Amino acid sequence: MNEDIKSTIEQALATFRFNPEGLIPAIAQQFDTGEVLMMAWMNEEAISASFKEERVVYWSRSRQTLWRKGETSGQIQYLKEMRWDCDGDTLLVQVDQKGVACHTGQRSCFFSAVRDGKIKTISTVKIDPSKLYK
Amino acid sequence: MNEDIKSTIEQALATFRFNPEGLIPAIAQQFDTGEVLMMAWMNEEAISASFKEERVVYWSRSRQTLWRKGETSGQIQYLKEMRWDCDGDTLLVQVDQKGVACHTGQRSCFFSAVRDGKIKTISTVKIDPSKLYK
Repeated sequence: MNEDIKSTIEQALATFRFNPEGLIPAIAQQFDTGEVLMMAWMNEEAISASFKEERVVYWSRSRQTLWRKGETSGQIQYLKEMRWDCDGDTLLVQVDQKGVACHTGQRSCFFSAVRDGKIKTISTVKIDPSKLYK
Repeated sequence: MNEDIKSTIEQALATFRFNPEGLIPAIAQQFDTGEVLMMAWMNEEAISASFKEERVVYWSRSRQTLWRKGETSGQIQYLKEMRWDCDGDTLLVQVDQKGVACHTGQRSCFFSAVRDGKIKTISTVKIDPSKLYK
C-alpha cells in the first residue's frame, strides 16, 4: 500500500465508533447483485488487513483472532469497497464472494424468513458443507 | 393478527439469539432494489410491534424506548419480510422505505466510502434535513 491509501485508512479508522470491545459490525454485500451475505465483526486490525490484502478479514469473537474469510473453506470475499454509516458505527462492505458465504453451503447466511405467515427456508444449499470444511 | 401468525412470531423469537442487553442488530434493506439503508437494534417488543403494525419498529438504545421509524420524520419503513441469519443473531429486514432512511436526508445511511484511495460521499441529500424534523 502506498502512503496515500495508508493515510486514508487512518482517517477512516479515526471516524469509526468501535464498541467497548473495540469492534464494529460489518455487513457484507455482494457488490454487483446487492445480495446481503452475512454480518460479522471487525476491529482496527481486521479493517487494515482487509485493505492491505484486498480480501475481507473479520475478527472472530469466539476464537479471539483475525478471521480471513475463506481461509479454511476457500470461499473468499474479495474487497471491492468499504462504506460506513452516518454515525460511523456500522460498516457496509462491498465484496465479491467466491462460492458461498455461509458455513451451511447456502450463498447467504440470511436464508430463514417469516413468509406467508410461516417460517421458511428461502434458498437452497449450493455446496455440500462437508466439502467446505475437511 | 390471527393465532397462526402469532404462533409463527413466537417460534421465530425463540430462534433468535439476543445479546446480553436483549437486543439483536437489524439491517434494513429496500426489498425491491437491494439497497442497504441502515442498521439499528430491535428487542422482542420491537419485533412483535413490527409484525403487528406492518412497519419497522426499532429499539432506541439512546432513548431506551421503542422507535417507530418515521414517527417524527414521516419517513416510514413498511415491513415486507423479516429474515435472519444461520446463527439467529442478526436480522435482515426487507422494507419499503418511504422517502429517506437517514436523518441527514440521504436515502441510505451508508453514504461514506473509501473510493479511489480517498474518503468520499457517494450519494446526495434527497430531502433537506431541516424539513424532516420540525
